[in-house]
Amino acid sequence: MKSVDLLFGIHCHQPVGNFDFVFEELVEKSYLPFLEVLDKHPGFKMTVHYTGGLLEWLEVHRPGLLEKLRELIRRGQVEMLGGGFYEPILAVIPEADRREQVLLLTRYLKEKLGAVPRGIWLAERVWDSSIVPALVQAGIEYVLVDDYHFTCTGFGPEQLHGYYMTEEEGQALAIFPIDSRLRYLTPFQAVDKSITYLEEMASDGGGRCAIVVDDGEKYGGWPDTYDWVYTQGWLDNFLATVESHRDWIHTKTFSEILDSEPPRGRVYLPTASYFEMGQWSLPADKAVILGRAHRQMERSASLEELRPFLHGGIWKNFLVKYPESNLMHKKMLFLTQEAKKIPPSPERDTAQLAIYRAQTNDAYWHGVFGGLYLPHLRHAIHYQLLVAESLIGDGEGFRCRLFDYDRDGSSEVMVSTPVYSCGIIPHLGGHLFDWGIRPWRVNLLNTLARRFEHYHECETEPGTTPPDTESICTIHDRESASDPCLREELCYDWYPRRAFIEHFFGDSADLAGFSRSDYDEQGDFVLGEYAIQQIEPDKRPELVLERNGKVRSGDQDFEVRVLKTFHFGDKQVSVTYRLANLSALPLRTRFGVECNLSMPANNGPGGRYYLDGEEPAEPSFVSRGEDVGVSEVKLSDEVMGGIVTFGWERPAALWRFPLQTVSQSESGWEKTYQSSVLTPSWPVTLEPGGEWTMRLSLGVSV
Amino acid sequence: MKSVDLLFGIHCHQPVGNFDFVFEELVEKSYLPFLEVLDKHPGFKMTVHYTGGLLEWLEVHRPGLLEKLRELIRRGQVEMLGGGFYEPILAVIPEADRREQVLLLTRYLKEKLGAVPRGIWLAERVWDSSIVPALVQAGIEYVLVDDYHFTCTGFGPEQLHGYYMTEEEGQALAIFPIDSRLRYLTPFQAVDKSITYLEEMASDGGGRCAIVVDDGEKYGGWPDTYDWVYTQGWLDNFLATVESHRDWIHTKTFSEILDSEPPRGRVYLPTASYFEMGQWSLPADKAVILGRAHRQMERSASLEELRPFLHGGIWKNFLVKYPESNLMHKKMLFLTQEAKKIPPSPERDTAQLAIYRAQTNDAYWHGVFGGLYLPHLRHAIHYQLLVAESLIGDGEGFRCRLFDYDRDGSSEVMVSTPVYSCGIIPHLGGHLFDWGIRPWRVNLLNTLARRFEHYHECETEPGTTPPDTESICTIHDRESASDPCLREELCYDWYPRRAFIEHFFGDSADLAGFSRSDYDEQGDFVLGEYAIQQIEPDKRPELVLERNGKVRSGDQDFEVRVLKTFHFGDKQVSVTYRLANLSALPLRTRFGVECNLSMPANNGPGGRYYLDGEEPAEPSFVSRGEDVGVSEVKLSDEVMGGIVTFGWERPAALWRFPLQTVSQSESGWEKTYQSSVLTPSWPVTLEPGGEWTMRLSLGVSV
Repeated sequence: MKSVDLLFGIHCHQPVGNFDFVFEELVEKSYLPFLEVLDKHPGFKMTVHYTGGLLEWLEVHRPGLLEKLRELIRRGQVEMLGGGFYEPILAVIPEADRREQVLLLTRYLKEKLGAVPRGIWLAERVWDSSIVPALVQAGIEYVLVDDYHFTCTGFGPEQLHGYYMTEEEGQALAIFPIDSRLRYLTPFQAVDKSITYLEEMASDGGGRCAIVVDDGEKYGGWPDTYDWVYTQGWLDNFLATVESHRDWIHTKTFSEILDSEPPRGRVYLPTASYFEMGQWSLPADKAVILGRAHRQMERSASLEELRPFLHGGIWKNFLVKYPESNLMHKKMLFLTQEAKKIPPSPERDTAQLAIYRAQTNDAYWHGVFGGLYLPHLRHAIHYQLLVAESLIGDGEGFRCRLFDYDRDGSSEVMVSTPVYSCGIIPHLGGHLFDWGIRPWRVNLLNTLARRFEHYHECETEPGTTPPDTESICTIHDRESASDPCLREELCYDWYPRRAFIEHFFGDSADLAGFSRSDYDEQGDFVLGEYAIQQIEPDKRPELVLERNGKVRSGDQDFEVRVLKTFHFGDKQVSVTYRLANLSALPLRTRFGVECNLSMPANNGPGGRYYLDGEEPAEPSFVSRGEDVGVSEVKLSDEVMGGIVTFGWERPAALWRFPLQTVSQSESGWEKTYQSSVLTPSWPVTLEPGGEWTMRLSLGVSV
Repeated sequence: MKSVDLLFGIHCHQPVGNFDFVFEELVEKSYLPFLEVLDKHPGFKMTVHYTGGLLEWLEVHRPGLLEKLRELIRRGQVEMLGGGFYEPILAVIPEADRREQVLLLTRYLKEKLGAVPRGIWLAERVWDSSIVPALVQAGIEYVLVDDYHFTCTGFGPEQLHGYYMTEEEGQALAIFPIDSRLRYLTPFQAVDKSITYLEEMASDGGGRCAIVVDDGEKYGGWPDTYDWVYTQGWLDNFLATVESHRDWIHTKTFSEILDSEPPRGRVYLPTASYFEMGQWSLPADKAVILGRAHRQMERSASLEELRPFLHGGIWKNFLVKYPESNLMHKKMLFLTQEAKKIPPSPERDTAQLAIYRAQTNDAYWHGVFGGLYLPHLRHAIHYQLLVAESLIGDGEGFRCRLFDYDRDGSSEVMVSTPVYSCGIIPHLGGHLFDWGIRPWRVNLLNTLARRFEHYHECETEPGTTPPDTESICTIHDRESASDPCLREELCYDWYPRRAFIEHFFGDSADLAGFSRSDYDEQGDFVLGEYAIQQIEPDKRPELVLERNGKVRSGDQDFEVRVLKTFHFGDKQVSVTYRLANLSALPLRTRFGVECNLSMPANNGPGGRYYLDGEEPAEPSFVSRGEDVGVSEVKLSDEVMGGIVTFGWERPAALWRFPLQTVSQSESGWEKTYQSSVLTPSWPVTLEPGGEWTMRLSLGVSV
């Protein structure tokens, strides 16, 4: 009789920093009902992965769910997968951290759930052969990737019903390919379609594996799935049907296969993830081209044959595509290296744990989920990094270092004081790009620029309605469903949204245009290269930056020197500007200084406010007209628990607007507050050789 | 005025083990004339890479050439590139070996040529981010890859006129992309085409780099290039023309750019090489599909836009595609790990050096060059591995180990004696797959199976005639030019060509069909799984393998047990077969045992012979009919310097034929001797429960 081994599993994950209500909702709609259904079908063996952050939350808030899981493990129905505890992309963290994160989850599972994982769930299936040695050292025997990884290197679908051995530095590891067809059948299509597929795969004598492990949130957590999976009973039906075919469908755990079947052969995989991730990681204009090619091949029916050869970029390109992601990544790298330099201590362990939390992948990238576009996820990363920094820094004193912090080949100035740490990037506008307030655990420059994303442009609008009543949409079907109202709000920034950015405005510039990045910049200072004129590391320096640039006024170009002197106060960072006209004609212009402040609160009551005196005046995420004659603006944020003051010497016209991005998530397009943009400006007239000065300060109430 | 920086370079390499006459010819036709022309144009700065193996050969045979090179370096005209000394694929050797190979070449260049390399030539441009830390540790600041690597991750051609920074584990490395258009223009197209291209690239204020470094053998060493490059004077003309435009074409070294220009940004590259390598590394049937897609995109003019997303496999897949390559690689890995376990000594250093030699990439893969298909290159690898093995082994005694030698997830039996080392693979036919004779430094099982290659099937035959008289063909233009005579000889093996392979022949089987792998195999033992019945490690074992398999005879399937007992003598390996008929009917069949012997000599006088008594009888690479009543066959090989005897207890019919592959090289298709196939066979009649035995021996005259 023909038979097939079904290796079924789920992976459940919530990022560090996600809202409690999200956890709550997923427990109710997905995690708990799944286990309850499973509990009713003791003959159905499967494999389960919960990430460490989720387990920690459940331990505190829903110990009962863990108890249920422990029982399923105890009776041998569930095999647990390990992984990096806080679900990092293993390829982009240091080798020692890979090993420790995996060991951390292994120890947790053993202690709390009585399970010893032999395999891992590979976060976002980002495979890089460099991870093999650390996994082997951590006692891991197998890992799961997509069939796409295998087809990329020339394997045919008929070869993917078992596991293969790979090797790196002589270390061996087993790899199971997940069947993408099953991944789209379960639970989105009627149960009998999965059974038919399993029938096709069944063979005389058995031994073929049908492998499907995918996000647990598909089962009730994703839009529209609760009704389908539980109310309409897809899951119960699927498990019951499989059980009723137990004579030929054998549900097994991965370890059972490992112990009973030989590998199918050897394999070396390229650096890869699933196809869609390849598209998302490309620069958006290239992602458009790839998407178009993909759709065209689909239409011409050549996709099945050619898809193995059609690749996007690699995950690490997110660090190039989004400098904001790179800054988190490089701060993480810097701190984890620093942590390893200090002697072992409880503080160091706590710091290292905070760094592991900050390695959670979600906030570092963007695809069909919000990810990087969700400020609370980025704030959570910066929060953990500031926890670590406080514990391992030489915290008491003042320190100034000049080194290539962001790994772009040029040096940044990194300043650390007891109250804050900050970074200035001389070769890119001399911006303040990082300002972490230690007591608040908030990086006030956790901003995000508005940029073109490939889904902003789409040729066709894929339907979100399933073709029949026997299936529901996956989130990928929804991916390109745009919102016409939000489409009108699309606008793109041409520079990163940081602090102390110098603008020269012409007469036609106004707040409306400026807030859409649609105005004529008259100077070349926004992204210009500054030279470091003076810096005295390890003394409280006056960092002096200098740039001779161009300013256009009327029909003429003027040579203008800007001296930009940073002062690092106890609770404030100030900049004194000294503008000089080096040309032979008088220059009339308008000089503005832009500061972005990213406040951690959400929209709504109890959130971010501009203050009028000590009283909340207006939410800082509301746009407002030009204020004239202003010398100071204060912002309060109740999550942060303090006040930020941005002030200057002489009254200015003040433009303020909230910077909001338009991005997609699993439930469609959404608009998200990223920072409050504050730009005071002054009319400036400079005779040849003349000078003009202004001092501005950003201060915090800590 | 517009200007451009030209970073021009050559990479010169010959594999360890190549024939002296090949070195000689290349010195005369390429290496020396190139330097002579360069010497006449002192204003033309450039970059040069010679691999260590070539430098060692030149030092002995052509010290004058090195003297000329040293002079060019001394006067600052030439910058030398470093690299892995023996040109390994850095990604597939252990991290410690990467570092040491690079340091070895750096020290050599410093000592012998007075050059301190800051960058490396990356062998076959096989990039893998895991190589970064070792390079940085070895003091390397930059590396060269193709523009294809960059476009794969979303870069546009306009972004590739400078260098980028990458990072791995926090270590930073600069990467220069080589311009593929210039790579095809020089020297194959008229000089003015290169100049026009440089004109297009030139920009106001300069700062853009035109980067081209490619095989030095293009300049005189490849077919037809000597006449074009030297007799017709392309090179002299190119250098003179560039010099005449010195006001706007600035020839520079890579270090000059590194010291004067900032990087263009950050980059993370995928595991990749050039596009063609991606195709070659795929399984051949998939390579056909990719080639077809490529040609179709070319025809539909979508190639330029889509090529960045069109990828083949990765280099490491050669180790899967060719198990013969994998066996060299895994032996190399095993020995380099063993070497590191023994205490430092001159012997260990010599062994490690031999292992570095055995890491030379050429014999491990196949593309437009013969590579793996050239037995002398593989013999050179095995030679070095046997040198190392002799030095680091516990050579004196007898040792038997059971472990996963080839990393396929199942164990092999590895036996080591003072005279030889060998390996048996129980789960794949119980073959003897490796037999290294230490005194000869020859692996007699350095065989290669005949297999389908993508170029065996081609839709179109690309012309080898250039379109006009102002250009010549590159070797890629020639790639698919097949030879109709050789095409008729194509046949493919369905099992690896090793020793002690059990065949059951039907009446219709004959030598002609057998030698083309075109016959009906009646048994399932050739690739069948044997169980280990008995083994006593660390004693001289009688390794007993057992398999219950099927043999077809007439219209019936018989169950047959084969016991296969290996005896490991001082100078021979013997196998005693015990066949038993487990079925209820008598079985009539013909039982044959195939042994392949790979002899290192070339065709022609002084090469390989069958012996008649002590006298050379017939070259062993000649096919001959069936000999009847033979009990022994002897083979002599003058390169090996000894005799191999294959004998058996009772007279047999003996089939012998040379196994020859048909493969492409840079000069077209060629047929290559890989092994002498010897298959004695006996008529066997087995009553139900009956047994039949035979003992066969392979012995060496050491």
